[in-house]
Amino acid sequence: MMANQTINGMNGVTAGNGHRERALAGAVGPKRWNVQASEMAKRTFNPIRAIVDSMHIEPNPHKAMISLSIGDPTVFRNLPTDNEVRTAVKEAIDSGNYDGYAPSIGYQQAREAIADYYTCAEAPLEARDIVLSSGCSQAIEMAITVLANPGDNILVPRPGFSLYQTLATSHGVHVKHYDLLPDQCWEIDLEHMESLVDARTACVVVNNPSNPCGSVFNREHILDILAVAEKNRVPILADEIYGDMIRDGLLRLSQKILGPSTVIQGALKRILNHTPSDFYQRTVEFIKDNAEYCYNTLTTVPGLKPFMPCGAMYMMVGIQMDKFPEYKDDVQFTQRLISDQSVFCLPAKCFEYPNYFRVVLTVPREMLEEACMRIQDFCAQNYIGTQP
Amino acid sequence: MMANQTINGMNGVTAGNGHRERALAGAVGPKRWNVQASEMAKRTFNPIRAIVDSMHIEPNPHKAMISLSIGDPTVFRNLPTDNEVRTAVKEAIDSGNYDGYAPSIGYQQAREAIADYYTCAEAPLEARDIVLSSGCSQAIEMAITVLANPGDNILVPRPGFSLYQTLATSHGVHVKHYDLLPDQCWEIDLEHMESLVDARTACVVVNNPSNPCGSVFNREHILDILAVAEKNRVPILADEIYGDMIRDGLLRLSQKILGPSTVIQGALKRILNHTPSDFYQRTVEFIKDNAEYCYNTLTTVPGLKPFMPCGAMYMMVGIQMDKFPEYKDDVQFTQRLISDQSVFCLPAKCFEYPNYFRVVLTVPREMLEEACMRIQDFCAQNYIGTQP
Repeated sequence: MMANQTINGMNGVTAGNGHRERALAGAVGPKRWNVQASEMAKRTFNPIRAIVDSMHIEPNPHKAMISLSIGDPTVFRNLPTDNEVRTAVKEAIDSGNYDGYAPSIGYQQAREAIADYYTCAEAPLEARDIVLSSGCSQAIEMAITVLANPGDNILVPRPGFSLYQTLATSHGVHVKHYDLLPDQCWEIDLEHMESLVDARTACVVVNNPSNPCGSVFNREHILDILAVAEKNRVPILADEIYGDMIRDGLLRLSQKILGPSTVIQGALKRILNHTPSDFYQRTVEFIKDNAEYCYNTLTTVPGLKPFMPCGAMYMMVGIQMDKFPEYKDDVQFTQRLISDQSVFCLPAKCFEYPNYFRVVLTVPREMLEEACMRIQDFCAQNYIGTQP
Repeated sequence: MMANQTINGMNGVTAGNGHRERALAGAVGPKRWNVQASEMAKRTFNPIRAIVDSMHIEPNPHKAMISLSIGDPTVFRNLPTDNEVRTAVKEAIDSGNYDGYAPSIGYQQAREAIADYYTCAEAPLEARDIVLSSGCSQAIEMAITVLANPGDNILVPRPGFSLYQTLATSHGVHVKHYDLLPDQCWEIDLEHMESLVDARTACVVVNNPSNPCGSVFNREHILDILAVAEKNRVPILADEIYGDMIRDGLLRLSQKILGPSTVIQGALKRILNHTPSDFYQRTVEFIKDNAEYCYNTLTTVPGLKPFMPCGAMYMMVGIQMDKFPEYKDDVQFTQRLISDQSVFCLPAKCFEYPNYFRVVLTVPREMLEEACMRIQDFCAQNYIGTQP
């Protein structure tokens, strides 16, 4: 990693390893500006953005666009945030108590509210177990960087959420993909996972329920995962759940941002304790109904194979690519689905899982029905049976 | 940087470079858990916290504690946030438009509002020049990491805000301190600064107005700083102000957090355009009055040398340590000021500038007067004149 530092006063040619050459004071001649983005910035890479940006996304001008691509349940305003949450945040604002700096790991009171909410007899939680972050993405970044050094590796699920890879790669941490088994409810292929562990494996990311699969592991499978981790002494990074053992490092890393949003912290206790439970029930029910409708419809479509989700808000749909010979992969398939039918689903190449696409299930029902109908039409027009 | 990877199935002794030894599948015997915080976590270090945590802070039980240590203008509620700001944030919450995911660099509309607010003829700004972050600390981290690779160095002011060092060191970037000149209104010692530039200097941090000095550079000095930077082709990292040249890297790095607070972004336009100007005027006036009072009082105290600030909300006060022989440094001096007088000022060792302390000027006036009186008493009791 040592730079091959060539000092050259006459020009500013970039050294091979990206370090700037720069004349020392006293060298002759003018120097050129040569400010480059760091290696970290160059390594930082969001695969979803790269794939989507390279897609030719031009909807059919005769059909209104339906986007089933973005995992954001709020865009269609059919699943609004509960009023209790809005009230809690507005009260925190009006109180004047949350306008300043909080401790970098969060207010004691907010950490207590979270511990009280999530604690259980088998895994008791206290405020000191909680480290708050600016969004889940910072939580994941802290969890990866507290465990892994540059050159280490982490194991992540395939298919899986791409941010693990973005963050790890940004920090010079390698990523190895372990397989999920679509025909076993997307459970982890434990043998494959274990085969990837080596001396520099810093952790295994377990994402449960899964984005994009919508799968939920049963107790037995979770115990099996733990057994593999235990045997190999590899810690598990479970989205948002951290063990006490890594807390010291997290404390230090949390100091890099001088505290997550104070207003939301002020509102947290009320949000956690007073948001009516039927808000959650209605939301889950809505997504479940949409999942059933979508599954029942797409399962009748020749050439598609939907996988019924049990959690999260996504459905994976397999494409029998040999039945759609016009398209070489899921990216071409979904791209043409846009230009023909104005329906946008993310190609699962975004999740390192080609020949699938992902459907977001939070859209209003009429919109989902229209989208399924159009997907059906698209497949009917493009499907080539075994005996064309 | 390559790890000396020893594979040892029988135990889990840590390798010298901190990488875990771990048996490969198939090795015999049980392994011990040996999960360590990463090198980055170990490197992450907040000097203020380290110094303050090591101080023995026990106020005089007969005097109410007055804290002039924390740079947070809201703690005493005498400088409340303007109601227009609260209203703007509450409107953003009620609109339901800011509950989802924003682009990682921020909403176009919020970026436009900021560009419109800060643009000027000499330095026109557009929305595409703006990258939003989760607080200033993330902005500083992005700015440092987009410019510097591990092993590079950055130049930071002494005395200066310690977060630059915390963030740089966390990323393996070295820090070199250039001097400010207390008797020249804390201007930069440009010769010293230039002497520190080498082939791996990634940027010069210019913090203006300064924390902790409260100094404001005049136009001529700023042009002199730019001339040194230009001559050496070293970019300047000015708190919150970024050049277009590094934008691409910032775009990538911003993807590591999936977007700063959407609610605040929704409120930004109204906050920037409608917060009454007399809110700012009153705040600045209040701090100026406090600064004058504090300066006029402490300047009469034998053994102290206050420096009148022109901006920010801090005052640096020099201690003639030879007049206080009982205390070996500013840490001991401020510690004893707490135990005797219950007045807490940060020792300027926190800013890499020993034999000074920093006073926060945002406290209510009566409190500041009481604090100055106690500081006066303390010095009178401890001062040893030239002829004791």
